[in-house]
Amino acid sequence: MPTLSVFTDVPMAQKLEGSLLKTYKQDDNPNKMFLAYKVCMTSKGRPWVSSVVRKTRMQIAQDPSLNYEYTPVMGMKSFVQASLNLLFGKNSQVIVENRAGGVQTVGDSGAFQLGAQFLKSWCQSSQIVYIVSSQKEPHGLIFQDMGFTVYEHTFWDSAHLCLDPNMLLDVVKHAPHGCVFVIGSMGNCQLTPSQWTQLMTLMKSKEIFPFFDIPYQGLSTGDLEEDARFLHYFVSQGFEFFCSQSLSKNFGIYDEGVGTLVVVALNNQLLLRVLSQLMNFARALWLNPPTTGARIITSVLCNPAMQGEWRQSLEGVVENVMMTKEKVKEKLRLLGTPGSWDHITEQKGSHSYLGLNCKYLGRDSSLVSDLGFGLVFEHKLHGPVELLWDPCGSPEILTLPTVHNSPWARGERDGTTLGSETLWSSPAQQVEYLISEKHIYIPKNGRINFTCINSYNIDYITSSINEAVCFTKDSER
Amino acid sequence: MPTLSVFTDVPMAQKLEGSLLKTYKQDDNPNKMFLAYKVCMTSKGRPWVSSVVRKTRMQIAQDPSLNYEYTPVMGMKSFVQASLNLLFGKNSQVIVENRAGGVQTVGDSGAFQLGAQFLKSWCQSSQIVYIVSSQKEPHGLIFQDMGFTVYEHTFWDSAHLCLDPNMLLDVVKHAPHGCVFVIGSMGNCQLTPSQWTQLMTLMKSKEIFPFFDIPYQGLSTGDLEEDARFLHYFVSQGFEFFCSQSLSKNFGIYDEGVGTLVVVALNNQLLLRVLSQLMNFARALWLNPPTTGARIITSVLCNPAMQGEWRQSLEGVVENVMMTKEKVKEKLRLLGTPGSWDHITEQKGSHSYLGLNCKYLGRDSSLVSDLGFGLVFEHKLHGPVELLWDPCGSPEILTLPTVHNSPWARGERDGTTLGSETLWSSPAQQVEYLISEKHIYIPKNGRINFTCINSYNIDYITSSINEAVCFTKDSER
Repeated sequence: MPTLSVFTDVPMAQKLEGSLLKTYKQDDNPNKMFLAYKVCMTSKGRPWVSSVVRKTRMQIAQDPSLNYEYTPVMGMKSFVQASLNLLFGKNSQVIVENRAGGVQTVGDSGAFQLGAQFLKSWCQSSQIVYIVSSQKEPHGLIFQDMGFTVYEHTFWDSAHLCLDPNMLLDVVKHAPHGCVFVIGSMGNCQLTPSQWTQLMTLMKSKEIFPFFDIPYQGLSTGDLEEDARFLHYFVSQGFEFFCSQSLSKNFGIYDEGVGTLVVVALNNQLLLRVLSQLMNFARALWLNPPTTGARIITSVLCNPAMQGEWRQSLEGVVENVMMTKEKVKEKLRLLGTPGSWDHITEQKGSHSYLGLNCKYLGRDSSLVSDLGFGLVFEHKLHGPVELLWDPCGSPEILTLPTVHNSPWARGERDGTTLGSETLWSSPAQQVEYLISEKHIYIPKNGRINFTCINSYNIDYITSSINEAVCFTKDSER
Repeated sequence: MPTLSVFTDVPMAQKLEGSLLKTYKQDDNPNKMFLAYKVCMTSKGRPWVSSVVRKTRMQIAQDPSLNYEYTPVMGMKSFVQASLNLLFGKNSQVIVENRAGGVQTVGDSGAFQLGAQFLKSWCQSSQIVYIVSSQKEPHGLIFQDMGFTVYEHTFWDSAHLCLDPNMLLDVVKHAPHGCVFVIGSMGNCQLTPSQWTQLMTLMKSKEIFPFFDIPYQGLSTGDLEEDARFLHYFVSQGFEFFCSQSLSKNFGIYDEGVGTLVVVALNNQLLLRVLSQLMNFARALWLNPPTTGARIITSVLCNPAMQGEWRQSLEGVVENVMMTKEKVKEKLRLLGTPGSWDHITEQKGSHSYLGLNCKYLGRDSSLVSDLGFGLVFEHKLHGPVELLWDPCGSPEILTLPTVHNSPWARGERDGTTLGSETLWSSPAQQVEYLISEKHIYIPKNGRINFTCINSYNIDYITSSINEAVCFTKDSER
């Protein structure tokens, strides 16, 4: 008797991400290269590991006094405390007042998963989330899967090639009361004092809940304190918030996926109540978080000499990034590439916008998302519309669905219409040129990982950028 | 202007578990001991670690060729394959036919969290879960929090002091069509061939979905293959199932919390579809599972000499457990403790029922749960009722809420009524005696971890059990 499968109705899941990496892997051109890795790479093209990590790993393996018992649900206490001290400073008021706490979390998603579960259950007025496009996957999707409404935005002004605080303020102005704002590093978004005041006033009056994302403290400016400074400003202004603090990237222990969900509350009593609820969620999620990563990090942070060595290794990475950026700029200058490339060196950190064109000509639309191969526009009449584009398969085909599953409309490559208005023309053709002609894989928004550029590939990359800018038609840079 | 907290309405969470351990920790009696640890202990009272682990950990720390890049969402491929081979045998048909697969999971809850999320989304006819009481926390709660209806049951026949296959069959008989059955080790529940046939026929006809729990393969009989044999029987009968395979306990790397959610489907195509959906859930849960535990285990399993040493270390643990049980039985015999204590040595594995009394005298009720300090009865007229009891605080007070939040009724210690019927009398007084008089902390159901008994404490423990049996009134053993 043939049995019917329980899984008969389960479809193959849509791949959510990694399409760029997958296409790269399938490409058999010998010159192919991938400039969108999440992790920092060494000059030899290997994932960077802080020099203190190997030593510490060995010390831990040799330590006979260590207890390998189950970790508490909330994680290693010493690890959580060391993480908080790193973020706020040991003697910061929020720590002295016992109103900052945390839960050890697992992997790159754990802190968002845990925080989102809490907000879903306990802050039911905050079911709308704003997130920058480059964080939509996977963090925005975590909220979305849980039933939150997720809006994407960007602060990158592709016309002026800079991160624009006014774009941030504009998004906040239009955001509804009580929403959640996922905020990544603000180091590249230089707010004036008056813009800061405006932002704080807006967020306070709208009771916007900040959910910070600190994925690599120290790898933006090379200075741990500087990279977290904007967070202290929110603390000083009396905000309560969550913060996903990842410590895998800045130690180079990507495979250990360790972090903290940091909670700041108005007082200790509120903090304890929030932590007690988070504990129940963490128990159901993983019960006991793995310790190796937490042990390595705690050992380094609690030993002044080791911490000093770690800080130096971070500075080293950032110096290399700046040197690479200078070299890229200089090589483009020598090649006579049109345009100023100052925006490359003006941005901090390993991941920065190249500033290749991706023109949005919609008179009545504004860019909402520019992640990967999809472009989402907010259209005045038609609401959000999405442009899906496959640069490797058939680059000529543009599909235009609305987000609300209405029938797809097909457009032309160089200008298409929705209703009677031109929405865009020649989207991202420089990026497309790099991928399809030069086999250099970079995200649609042109935000690349500069540590992927090294002495072996810099000439090929810069001459390819030069070609892309000079040879693509309608180039206006 | 004082700001209002976002967290104002968040209450302190109820502690879900660990009340026994917490009470033990707060007890300042010098003789106190805790016999309910989850992990195997050495004769010196330290968590057991397999001898191969330390070596392997060192080798990994010293290996310069290792890449610390992000782990794939599904985990280390070699680890998942090694886990599957361990569970089913490398050349088993289910592996040869490519219809068994898995996802690396995190912590003790990860596999259940992931599997439950899948069942919630894709098997909407399976929203009722049956689980044995001792697994209710935390695994049953994971299902419950997701909206499943969770029923507890037990196979422990406290009258005849044995695990009774007929109790299992009875539960299956009354379970609804298409429910999920969480099944732990069946090694102690000796089914006759005709009982097996009956069980398979019942489960097939009701389309019951098995969710196995293999928390410590090899630590039940000392034989890895023997401990997983009942699973092979389900495979041979054409069942599709999930299995939470934990590998932390049998290696003694509790702090690394590593396991696999194993999937068996009718064919490879169905398997791939299920795995693709699980991948999306895993991405949102943790994105990249930590590797240290997986690396240690894979290194051992893929090296025949190391695997041999590991197998020997498992046999050693099980031999010690059996020796301890024999000693406990012999000491109770020498003390003249009433009753036969054969049930102690008849049960396999570290965690076994002591068989202390916990009498359920309800004429119209049957025991549903006997975990920790709560007893849940299924009452003929009133549905599930719960007895909460605090043996350390005020042992005389019994509270009797119904599960559906109806008003609490207070009962007397030695007999209480719900409506006009007597539900129980003198519940668990031998267990209570051990805790309150002797400061020996054991769960309400009397299921203890025998590796917590060693040469330093065995005399105190056995003489205390003897006292408990002889001195408690209404003893009927």
